[in-house]
Amino acid sequence: MTQALSELIEFLRIPSVSADPAHNQDTKRAAAWLEAKLQALGFSVEVAPTANHPIVYAEKHVGEAAPTVLIYGHYDVQPPDPLELWETPPFEPTVRDGKLYARGSSDDKGQIFAHIAAVEALGSALPVNVKFVIEGEEEVGFGNLVPWLKENVERLRADVLVVSDSSMLAPGQPAITYGLRGIVLMEVRLQGASRDLHSGTYGGGAPNPIHAAAWMIAKLKGEDGTIRIPGFYDRVRPISPDERALYAQLPFDEGAFAAAIGATAMPGEEGYGLLERVWARPTLDVNGIWGGYQGEGSKTVIPAKAGFKLSMRLVPDQDPSVIHALTRAYLEAILPLGYRMDIVPLGEGKPVITPLDSPAMQAAAVALERAWGKKAVFNRMGGSVPIVADFQELLGIPTVLMGFGLDDDNLHSPNEKFDLINFEKAIESSRNFLLEFAKQAG
Amino acid sequence: MTQALSELIEFLRIPSVSADPAHNQDTKRAAAWLEAKLQALGFSVEVAPTANHPIVYAEKHVGEAAPTVLIYGHYDVQPPDPLELWETPPFEPTVRDGKLYARGSSDDKGQIFAHIAAVEALGSALPVNVKFVIEGEEEVGFGNLVPWLKENVERLRADVLVVSDSSMLAPGQPAITYGLRGIVLMEVRLQGASRDLHSGTYGGGAPNPIHAAAWMIAKLKGEDGTIRIPGFYDRVRPISPDERALYAQLPFDEGAFAAAIGATAMPGEEGYGLLERVWARPTLDVNGIWGGYQGEGSKTVIPAKAGFKLSMRLVPDQDPSVIHALTRAYLEAILPLGYRMDIVPLGEGKPVITPLDSPAMQAAAVALERAWGKKAVFNRMGGSVPIVADFQELLGIPTVLMGFGLDDDNLHSPNEKFDLINFEKAIESSRNFLLEFAKQAG
Repeated sequence: MTQALSELIEFLRIPSVSADPAHNQDTKRAAAWLEAKLQALGFSVEVAPTANHPIVYAEKHVGEAAPTVLIYGHYDVQPPDPLELWETPPFEPTVRDGKLYARGSSDDKGQIFAHIAAVEALGSALPVNVKFVIEGEEEVGFGNLVPWLKENVERLRADVLVVSDSSMLAPGQPAITYGLRGIVLMEVRLQGASRDLHSGTYGGGAPNPIHAAAWMIAKLKGEDGTIRIPGFYDRVRPISPDERALYAQLPFDEGAFAAAIGATAMPGEEGYGLLERVWARPTLDVNGIWGGYQGEGSKTVIPAKAGFKLSMRLVPDQDPSVIHALTRAYLEAILPLGYRMDIVPLGEGKPVITPLDSPAMQAAAVALERAWGKKAVFNRMGGSVPIVADFQELLGIPTVLMGFGLDDDNLHSPNEKFDLINFEKAIESSRNFLLEFAKQAG
Repeated sequence: MTQALSELIEFLRIPSVSADPAHNQDTKRAAAWLEAKLQALGFSVEVAPTANHPIVYAEKHVGEAAPTVLIYGHYDVQPPDPLELWETPPFEPTVRDGKLYARGSSDDKGQIFAHIAAVEALGSALPVNVKFVIEGEEEVGFGNLVPWLKENVERLRADVLVVSDSSMLAPGQPAITYGLRGIVLMEVRLQGASRDLHSGTYGGGAPNPIHAAAWMIAKLKGEDGTIRIPGFYDRVRPISPDERALYAQLPFDEGAFAAAIGATAMPGEEGYGLLERVWARPTLDVNGIWGGYQGEGSKTVIPAKAGFKLSMRLVPDQDPSVIHALTRAYLEAILPLGYRMDIVPLGEGKPVITPLDSPAMQAAAVALERAWGKKAVFNRMGGSVPIVADFQELLGIPTVLMGFGLDDDNLHSPNEKFDLINFEKAIESSRNFLLEFAKQAG
């Protein structure tokens, strides 16, 4: 086991789940772990407290003339439930068949740590100034990072932003992501009567918020995959013929993609290919629903309350605030008679597209090809890294999104993993990039 | 505190929740408690084991010439959750403002125990043979009672069946129920992919069983309250003009009914009054739903699984088996592409209507009027006592359904209660009935 791998395992043992306040001490521990590691590498480090989870900021200067690379990542992880589906416990990292299984291994501890390991590998040969911003709220969107970025714009100045929180196109096929979807998150809470009711005594005469939730969800997105919120598609940038052609050339097998997730069909918006749907079209998913009796057997109850969590993925040029407002207005319009509703915002982020022809992008292409022995492809990503849009707005620098995860890494699912070869090549790619960017920008 | 009340409190302390296997020892304790009590009153008692919860059977003979009254009830109770909404713990019976608060106080321990107390009060003056069947699976429908009844038809022979597991029309207004709705219970389990997926990477391209559940529930019952299962209404007996007139005369205030449950509207099938909808029209309710992330904050997941529990309330002449089959066929027809479905039956029971002009019904009318100082009304009930249909089929005797609960007893909800005056009058009504039935049938 390499030194880098054994240190990553140590980092992964910390259950830094940002969504669950019970883990607040663990997010602090993860931040302190990074602080110690980066200080040992000669960085000056600040662990900036926030209302929730601290931000780790670190910088190492090699010279005024050298270009500056800003690297962003996050040390927080998704909740690990359902726990019973993990083959080995989420916070006891385990290597099986060349893969490292642990919550956060791919998203994003493994990927951000690869950059730290690359700086360590370069040692005194580091040719660029390096700044790290590693936050603890990426999975929850509490909104504490952006105000901190705004207050710290001056010291964050850099020539390029590098983010590794995404996937390669396929094993062995490096990718540079030029588009990210934006996101709007909200929770919808519904109430009928003031208390749970007997479904015999009241059935046929009382409001049932589970039905209200079902009617509303069915009106949000139809079985044809179309989102029915008026105005939702108004500002969606059409997919250009060039981009369609680019997608068609990618080594992507729709059947293999479905088989990998055990799906018998991949339903979605009509008239678009699967890659188009997950990269370049907006979507809407209910991520959680609850109401009434969920235990064994039956309980003849009409519940007083039900609710659901909603996420929408946006594409350029949709604006999250506009989509939030349109969604709220629509939910109010379709709320059936006899129900009260609360809508709780849970965060939002803008979609991003970055130009392919900057020196930073070209340096990344060289770095990846050298590490993997294969030309990198340019792709988009269905996921959201909302902070990228904020960095771009605040700093006005190009962003290089080079991801080292794989689509079967089980992000946000049980048995999350990171292939060891990807970890190793990520370190190599980052090292190559720092060297190559020094040349191209120097 | 009367002896009867302090004994009922003892009985209510036993958390005999039949739906939860963790309480299997408690259902046994409740059965043993009844056995001891009935033996002390001179009954010969058998506690008959079943695959789940035992049946308590007891009989006391006063003479060959005397008529025989069979009394049915249940000692099992609904699960008490959500626990945090109880003002006092569900299994620590508490008297407040003349009401006894405890899970099972009204449904059905308080009501069945009133009959036991009536027999005790009569002592050696008991003028009829009495048989008790007190089961422990009424709230779950595991189906163990009916086979036992079939095996024991001979010793169950009686002249009337008395059941007290229903409500009065209003405080102080006794009622004899001549109609009960039937029921069909099932659980629907849906699966999309084989594992939970990231809603960014896969959103727009992967099946989401929460949406499938919403689409299906919206297709089961529309916002107009109409059930859309083909053939569902085919055998529904229309409400006769006479019965409509009877309903119109009842002292029932729709606004007060809604206000009592804190509802802002009482939505339901168009063209029918509220009493018609809850007594004489069938309905469909989802009693529970689940899927995805239900914790704090957000989790950007597309869940692999979701599910819901469904109950349908039936009226004469709907047949539960036919409705079950129609529902299953419809669910299969509307299952969207890309999903697997399991349908788990959770029990069923037939609807019942009993004639108003039998001697037993007339004896009940006299007994109730004498206890309450007010003429009893004849009504139907929205709930189901599936076993009544089975008793009628097996024994061919009239059934007297005289309930002593109230609509605000919070059956199946937190803070279930039984008014002390109703408990007292229930004992008196039962004693009157035993005396009056001896005369009328003697």
